Amino acid sequence: MPIDPNRVLIFDTTLRDGEQSPGATMSHDEKLEIAGLLDAMGVDIIEAGFPVASEGDFTAVSEIAKTAQNAVICGLGRANFKDISRCWEAVKHARRPRIHTFIGTSPQHRAIPNLTMDQMADRIHETVSHARNLCEDVQWSPMDATRTEWEYLCRVVKIAIRAGATTINIPDTVGYTAPVESADLIRRLIAQVPGADAVTFSTHCHNDLGMATANALAAVAGGARQIECTINGLGERAGNTALEEVVMAMQVRNDIMPYRTGIDATKIMHISRRVATVSGFNVQPNKAIVGKNAFAHASGIHQDGMLKSADTFEIMHPRDVGLSETSIVMGKHSGRAALRSKLKDLGFEPGDNQLNDLFVRYKALADRKKEVFDDDLIALVTDASADGAGHLEVKFLRVICGTEAPQSADITLRVGTHDHQATAQGDGPVNAAFNAVRALYPHDARLQLYHVNAVTEGMDAQATVTVRIQEGGQIATGQAADTDTVVASVKAYVNALNRLSVRRERGGSDMPEFTYKEAG
Amino acid sequence: MPIDPNRVLIFDTTLRDGEQSPGATMSHDEKLEIAGLLDAMGVDIIEAGFPVASEGDFTAVSEIAKTAQNAVICGLGRANFKDISRCWEAVKHARRPRIHTFIGTSPQHRAIPNLTMDQMADRIHETVSHARNLCEDVQWSPMDATRTEWEYLCRVVKIAIRAGATTINIPDTVGYTAPVESADLIRRLIAQVPGADAVTFSTHCHNDLGMATANALAAVAGGARQIECTINGLGERAGNTALEEVVMAMQVRNDIMPYRTGIDATKIMHISRRVATVSGFNVQPNKAIVGKNAFAHASGIHQDGMLKSADTFEIMHPRDVGLSETSIVMGKHSGRAALRSKLKDLGFEPGDNQLNDLFVRYKALADRKKEVFDDDLIALVTDASADGAGHLEVKFLRVICGTEAPQSADITLRVGTHDHQATAQGDGPVNAAFNAVRALYPHDARLQLYHVNAVTEGMDAQATVTVRIQEGGQIATGQAADTDTVVASVKAYVNALNRLSVRRERGGSDMPEFTYKEAG
Repeated sequence: MPIDPNRVLIFDTTLRDGEQSPGATMSHDEKLEIAGLLDAMGVDIIEAGFPVASEGDFTAVSEIAKTAQNAVICGLGRANFKDISRCWEAVKHARRPRIHTFIGTSPQHRAIPNLTMDQMADRIHETVSHARNLCEDVQWSPMDATRTEWEYLCRVVKIAIRAGATTINIPDTVGYTAPVESADLIRRLIAQVPGADAVTFSTHCHNDLGMATANALAAVAGGARQIECTINGLGERAGNTALEEVVMAMQVRNDIMPYRTGIDATKIMHISRRVATVSGFNVQPNKAIVGKNAFAHASGIHQDGMLKSADTFEIMHPRDVGLSETSIVMGKHSGRAALRSKLKDLGFEPGDNQLNDLFVRYKALADRKKEVFDDDLIALVTDASADGAGHLEVKFLRVICGTEAPQSADITLRVGTHDHQATAQGDGPVNAAFNAVRALYPHDARLQLYHVNAVTEGMDAQATVTVRIQEGGQIATGQAADTDTVVASVKAYVNALNRLSVRRERGGSDMPEFTYKEAG
Repeated sequence: MPIDPNRVLIFDTTLRDGEQSPGATMSHDEKLEIAGLLDAMGVDIIEAGFPVASEGDFTAVSEIAKTAQNAVICGLGRANFKDISRCWEAVKHARRPRIHTFIGTSPQHRAIPNLTMDQMADRIHETVSHARNLCEDVQWSPMDATRTEWEYLCRVVKIAIRAGATTINIPDTVGYTAPVESADLIRRLIAQVPGADAVTFSTHCHNDLGMATANALAAVAGGARQIECTINGLGERAGNTALEEVVMAMQVRNDIMPYRTGIDATKIMHISRRVATVSGFNVQPNKAIVGKNAFAHASGIHQDGMLKSADTFEIMHPRDVGLSETSIVMGKHSGRAALRSKLKDLGFEPGDNQLNDLFVRYKALADRKKEVFDDDLIALVTDASADGAGHLEVKFLRVICGTEAPQSADITLRVGTHDHQATAQGDGPVNAAFNAVRALYPHDARLQLYHVNAVTEGMDAQATVTVRIQEGGQIATGQAADTDTVVASVKAYVNALNRLSVRRERGGSDMPEFTYKEAG
């Protein structure tokens, strides 16, 4: 527990609850990258995954535990010894490990394992005790707390505290609560449960009714000192409380919310973009804090002759959240040092070799484009890191498409060390090209998501394409950027196939035989 | 004012504050369509635009006023006689017209017209009196109310009520408030301002800190009986309170928010999709109520073996908001009646001729695709209504693209009654094709937004492309759908050019010499 009574701990669950949202599955490397960014921005606790869920989850949590510099690394497990032991095996490598265990305590959730109230109470005592025997830092959650009977909720929270839980997290699992209730629930628990003053209370809200941020802040007013949240509000259904919103609300309205977090808010924009990219979940333009339009009045888009001083409409500055205010910066005459400096502004610090590679590609891009925008550079870096050590590579592509069917694609694909050539037809240029890839590299992967964004202004914009494919229980995402949408699409598809094959070799499955993955 | 003390009026400002957000400008026809949908879903008051801002705004408000069946039609004007008179000229055609006038009352906003407190008070008295002389239904807003000195706010609200305002709207213009403050502000105003009991108090919240929904509902708890909101939370910066969120929150949590609106919630999904399409502002997957994942646990995406009964995780049903639960419905053997019935489910009721045209195109699509999804049909209808009476038409397109530059496009474009042919090169297939269009139809329009969405599953997905172009002060948006992304792009571009030329002929400008368009 923090010593400053107004210090609010930020518990990020982007890698657990966020990653659990349908379609947002991240690769191993992506999880490690995001964990590194969360750690660097000052997140207090990172919930890194659900170790018992799969080998892949276990490995990701273990590696994050080994590499984290400052954050507490937490893993989730259900209310049984196997889950909790497995969780400990993964988080124990951390300098500061935490075990988080939960059980659904509402009538709706008690019905699933078919336990009586007394049986569930015993289960809670046993499992929290087991966790505490393994780890000094134990968090316990009564899932669906907001629909649990008040007397029973007090009873089980008391049991968890007696059994050794150090943090009690109160989840609004169905996103059902209003702020007044949220504050009241925490306030009453702290007032009535014996031992409550010795633990940290935490809030975990879902956004089904659009009130997750207000509910989390209300819980803090009620006495909670930990907020569970995710970057961009990622998470099941309508998502979780957005980290960027609670952090900035407490900063902007410190007059009425005199709380402090350890977050470096200037790192918000970068991590928001990375999470959007790796999850394939775009942020809508009118999303608070991190949407493209959130600061639009300040960024020169909205300049229809309005007379206004900065503070007339601004309650925060773009730079407070790490948004660089100038969008046009680089041209074809910019040098290597300028590129390095600009990339640093954008949150990337490439090594010398990577910088050399990026510079070559930057020059090629700058030759084709008059102006190179921030997003072009981000796309360039993203694409470079996405290539990796893939064993499929697009060497040549030529597509003929248009209003007269069929469309056809002629591709040369390097598979391992050999080049292969194929021609295929399809419904459209992308479909034809994908069919050509499939002819050269047969697979059963099914396209789950295909998304094109022209991220920069003007007709010569680089298109960033996201492709997500599924094969069996495995999901892989690929991205690529190019001024040619079709080329970007095929490269993204090939990147996804490369990732899928890496996963296949590792043997980990993300969706094992597993009956109850949901929490919080 | 409604007679039922728990009846909350829904005031939709999608067409004013929403349309004002950078990049979301809608065409005349789009505004009329959205107004019709708002009217049909039971919105009490539609703020249709800002009549003095441009001829285009004036015409749109007038036509909406003439065609609305039930809703009060409201126009906005600043605190001067010209604005208010012009507003009246537009709304007076409505069966139930309203004038909404505002002035910025906070220290930050008083500085702009450089008025003393007393001068501003006089101005408010004069302008509200003028509005009331024209119209029985007058709404007044002290812009930036939440940063206005308390004594002064009470004073000006009292003046506006005495001058004849029937609704007092309290805007949180900068999205600065927390729920406790929002409730308290309304409660204290009602308690302290003489005459407050005779008017309706309204709340207008912005989402800069992610709390617009909670703030609006808190204001209702404090006594407000009108909520200003927009579909999808569209609006400047991070947007406004989302209509769908407040309506569903009051419905789902009627136990603690015992209020009633006149909204038919089953029409939410359709209007949400239409607003997303015409504004070009996509809804993120994890958006509350209308995001693609909001009901994902129920829609079969998230079925990794979880044991759950419907109410374990569900607080509302997809059908409550008009989301059809089956996504695969139509095949190549489906007939005209099935198409009509399915389109009706999706919220479209085409006339016989339009249905015939759609059926032909549906059959062509069904021949190319194994399964036709809901979104395919929506794309088909959208494309059909977007074609309109355009005088440019793509007759033939053939594009060669790939990794070896340059890309080239060969196009035949019908301009009026003649076909013209051109070949052009470009950075990518889309750029090459756009260059070919430009060669045949020279223009100065600049591409503002280019967005591709493959809206359906599978590789043979129809891509929906949105193109937004700007020429001088004019903005036009075009959309088109095709299995070929490049074809869809060119058709969307040509649609946008057609719309731009219609606007040019009408002579209306959307961005006139105009110094102060912001409100609320």
